[in-house]
Amino acid sequence: MNTDQLIRITRYYRSLNRLKTIGLEKVFANNLADAAGVSAAIVRKDFSQLSIYGQKRGGYQIADLLVSLGQLLGKGDSQNCIIIGCGRIGKALMHYTGFEPDGIRIVAGFDSDPAIFNDTTHPVPIYPISRLDEVVKNLDVSVGIITVPEQAASDSYERLLKAGVMGVMNFTPITLKPVAQEDGSLPVVHNINIALELEQIFYELKFPKQ
Amino acid sequence: MNTDQLIRITRYYRSLNRLKTIGLEKVFANNLADAAGVSAAIVRKDFSQLSIYGQKRGGYQIADLLVSLGQLLGKGDSQNCIIIGCGRIGKALMHYTGFEPDGIRIVAGFDSDPAIFNDTTHPVPIYPISRLDEVVKNLDVSVGIITVPEQAASDSYERLLKAGVMGVMNFTPITLKPVAQEDGSLPVVHNINIALELEQIFYELKFPKQ
Repeated sequence: MNTDQLIRITRYYRSLNRLKTIGLEKVFANNLADAAGVSAAIVRKDFSQLSIYGQKRGGYQIADLLVSLGQLLGKGDSQNCIIIGCGRIGKALMHYTGFEPDGIRIVAGFDSDPAIFNDTTHPVPIYPISRLDEVVKNLDVSVGIITVPEQAASDSYERLLKAGVMGVMNFTPITLKPVAQEDGSLPVVHNINIALELEQIFYELKFPKQ
Repeated sequence: MNTDQLIRITRYYRSLNRLKTIGLEKVFANNLADAAGVSAAIVRKDFSQLSIYGQKRGGYQIADLLVSLGQLLGKGDSQNCIIIGCGRIGKALMHYTGFEPDGIRIVAGFDSDPAIFNDTTHPVPIYPISRLDEVVKNLDVSVGIITVPEQAASDSYERLLKAGVMGVMNFTPITLKPVAQEDGSLPVVHNINIALELEQIFYELKFPKQ
């Protein structure tokens, strides 16, 4: 599966979960095409490449599609995340409910400010960073979201890797690079630089692509 | 300039602004390489392609580089943004100070909840969406950041376009497509789907690329 196809499959999967939630049983390639922002022909091509076939004029059974796509996406295992840095952005992500349809759970937050540990207005517990290893092990965490001030980004990243968290989503403007670990494994790092994205929008507005 | 080069130039520009802030006057290709996550050879190649030359063994003058790169990036004009949807994510972005080194300013927020208009704890004023056209015109806004619930995403997008805001950063899980306007111009839309990014990290952890 290439990256573009993976993105589409993930979008189909999310849409299917939503359609199921609102009580639908069948879906047509056109429905998924709209949701994923592609043509119905691409949806059919994706499915036939993955040996998923619909019924004649009947569309696809949502339940069947969810099983097939879920297997392809490696669903079923734990998808537990933690948030390092519980400032405004960290807290906003903690309260965000858009991860649940995908089976992704934010299970804990970490912060350096002791004042926040007793604040019970958060949907998940917040711990001092010194308890990272213990929480990661107990809660089977595989991804860490870094939302600390930029000067703390590299340190947070190293602590995550040391605790065995090999998936990282980084919201700081620092670019974190995947560095091979002693056992040869390579972390998966996605850097999301919001300021850079904004810059690019202004740039593209000023100098439109031909 | 291709996209990769644009991303690098933007990163150089940001790093230079920071270095200037802390009082430096000169910079070497190696400094910028570290900041942008590339090799020094690439920095030198970028600069020579753009006809920017350093001094022998003396590096580059930061002030000169800022002028040259700023022109390339179309700096100097207004880079005013608004935020549509002042929930947790919208508010977090409003308080984020990481845009300022790039000259990007968030100048106003919009929300459908009247309770928020008199809340003065926000760094910028928050208006009802009915005042969008007026505020966009008065404050010379060219980019809108959409942080509304997903069911309001398409409507917010249409309102922005109607108000003449042709740059959009969309944080909802809905994929917004650039649609050519009556005058033939094409909006610049960046969709940032945080849940999808997280999904991909879990997927790549499970099925590492070879």
